[in-house]
Amino acid sequence: MTNRNRQYLLERLPEGRLTPDCFRLVETDLPVPKDGEVLVKVHTLGIDAAARAWMNGATYRDALKKGTLMAGRAVADVVESRHSGFAPGDRVFAETGWQDYAAIAGDALTMLPLDIPVSQLLSIFGVSGLTAYFGLTEVARAGAGDTVVISAAAGAVGNIVGQIAKILGCRVVGVAGTDDKCNYLTGQLGFDAAINYRSDDVPGRLQALCPGGIDVYFDNVGGELLAAAIEQMNINGRIACCGAVANYDSGSAPTAGPAGVPLQLVIKRLTLRGFIVSDFFDRRTEALEQLRTWLDEGRLQPVVDMLEGFEQLPAALVGLLQGCNVGKRMVRIN
Amino acid sequence: MTNRNRQYLLERLPEGRLTPDCFRLVETDLPVPKDGEVLVKVHTLGIDAAARAWMNGATYRDALKKGTLMAGRAVADVVESRHSGFAPGDRVFAETGWQDYAAIAGDALTMLPLDIPVSQLLSIFGVSGLTAYFGLTEVARAGAGDTVVISAAAGAVGNIVGQIAKILGCRVVGVAGTDDKCNYLTGQLGFDAAINYRSDDVPGRLQALCPGGIDVYFDNVGGELLAAAIEQMNINGRIACCGAVANYDSGSAPTAGPAGVPLQLVIKRLTLRGFIVSDFFDRRTEALEQLRTWLDEGRLQPVVDMLEGFEQLPAALVGLLQGCNVGKRMVRIN
Repeated sequence: MTNRNRQYLLERLPEGRLTPDCFRLVETDLPVPKDGEVLVKVHTLGIDAAARAWMNGATYRDALKKGTLMAGRAVADVVESRHSGFAPGDRVFAETGWQDYAAIAGDALTMLPLDIPVSQLLSIFGVSGLTAYFGLTEVARAGAGDTVVISAAAGAVGNIVGQIAKILGCRVVGVAGTDDKCNYLTGQLGFDAAINYRSDDVPGRLQALCPGGIDVYFDNVGGELLAAAIEQMNINGRIACCGAVANYDSGSAPTAGPAGVPLQLVIKRLTLRGFIVSDFFDRRTEALEQLRTWLDEGRLQPVVDMLEGFEQLPAALVGLLQGCNVGKRMVRIN
Repeated sequence: MTNRNRQYLLERLPEGRLTPDCFRLVETDLPVPKDGEVLVKVHTLGIDAAARAWMNGATYRDALKKGTLMAGRAVADVVESRHSGFAPGDRVFAETGWQDYAAIAGDALTMLPLDIPVSQLLSIFGVSGLTAYFGLTEVARAGAGDTVVISAAAGAVGNIVGQIAKILGCRVVGVAGTDDKCNYLTGQLGFDAAINYRSDDVPGRLQALCPGGIDVYFDNVGGELLAAAIEQMNINGRIACCGAVANYDSGSAPTAGPAGVPLQLVIKRLTLRGFIVSDFFDRRTEALEQLRTWLDEGRLQPVVDMLEGFEQLPAALVGLLQGCNVGKRMVRIN
């Protein structure tokens, strides 16, 4: 065990698009766990688009501050424990930030099994899988026969939403940003159709591919795509608002929302509901068991975009925001 | 019984604001009921802001067509019946349109009691009361201790929403368009506070009057007020989308919606849900009994804006769209 701890600090807050030079690499001494804390060594960091939103101001968490450790969630291994619930060798999910080691209150850790690959712990069995599961089944109440449209469909959450929707018996249309992604969705993941929002006429394609209208729209991006989906929604349609990636990387607050709010909501009795996965944390076990069953049955595929090396972290997030990933992006650092 | 039937035709569709010259008065012969139909004589017509929206295109009903009878809902009395469920002297609720007499399928009529004043049948016990009841209790799930904000609060639905919210133990803030209306809401109806959206700084007043945030926003208007409410909503807040009066009288579709959609919905886990009262028609009896109880207990006041005379109809609707009414506007024509 080295006694040096690499860290990426958020050196400055981006004003527009995030660039790698917003981060600065430093080295510190190893943190020392206090009573009730656990020293963990980070194995693999998940890369989340929401991290860009955290830079814009307070959300469901405090805003990230200039000059402080960059925030991030990771699978990590316990090195030293001063908490009765953990021992060296345990594997945990933790909010470690972008560093090699972290000393964290044991009560803030989630124990993870050692017999599941880390790449699955951070995708299907992590925040992405739980978000997809609860967003689709609880927030959007999707069921057999529904037509489901998903934005950022090749992303960490979207690909799982689409796969679960197919398992539930839905017709699934994904929206993504390249032809390769679209081909992957239909060819590899069994989506019924896909739309390239960068090159296709999105409203026209939505209409053509959903001739019976849209029952569920799982929205990761907001913006014009949300407006186009609202126009095509069926009566009693449900929209799960999971993210607003279209807004994150501009640095400025959006000046307008979709024109169909609220008149189309009234006329078609639509429900838009925002959620974050922690709202469903008390039902986590049920979801994980179902996801595990589907995985074991071969009906659900992990889609992982694994990078290697601590120095990859800034570029990994910058690239994610530009849509470079297919599936859950993560960086193995130790 | 005269043998002449006055009618207002929608002579032309308005392009911007509705004006009285969009209507033309004609006289026709009395309609003759066919088998299964009932001839009714209209007593009092309800004036609905939604009628302006019906002129802009198909909504939850077909668009109104130029040159045809103006649509409207009324309390009417049965004159002649060719349907086994109705007899002369019965009182019914019917989609009669703006005319003295209508021949309507008996199956499309709703029987009304004779011992309740017509003004109450068209307000508290009519579409307005049911909309307020289900919108507040079911769609917005308001409960004791909630802070409830209501737009168009002195209108047909809004005044009842506020009164019910007070009965439920909510803190109630109404938004209306004149100081007189605001004074009426707080002085006569027991609202905790009111905001004049024409003269007050709405976002600032919302913040000052709802220091603990907004739990429920009952929206009748859309537009900037909806955007301002979203900014002040609490986590897990509910927005009942009942109407979009701000859009109705422009004739053109809005170009943008509230900027907080979808990012604020995600961050604060808000639900926006559009509804129309007919979605709850199967639970009508339960609502009417509750409303009757509250009225009998003196906890719910009918707020009625009754005009007299067939020729008042065009001006009554034009004025309603300009905010001239307090409570449910209706026109007694016979």
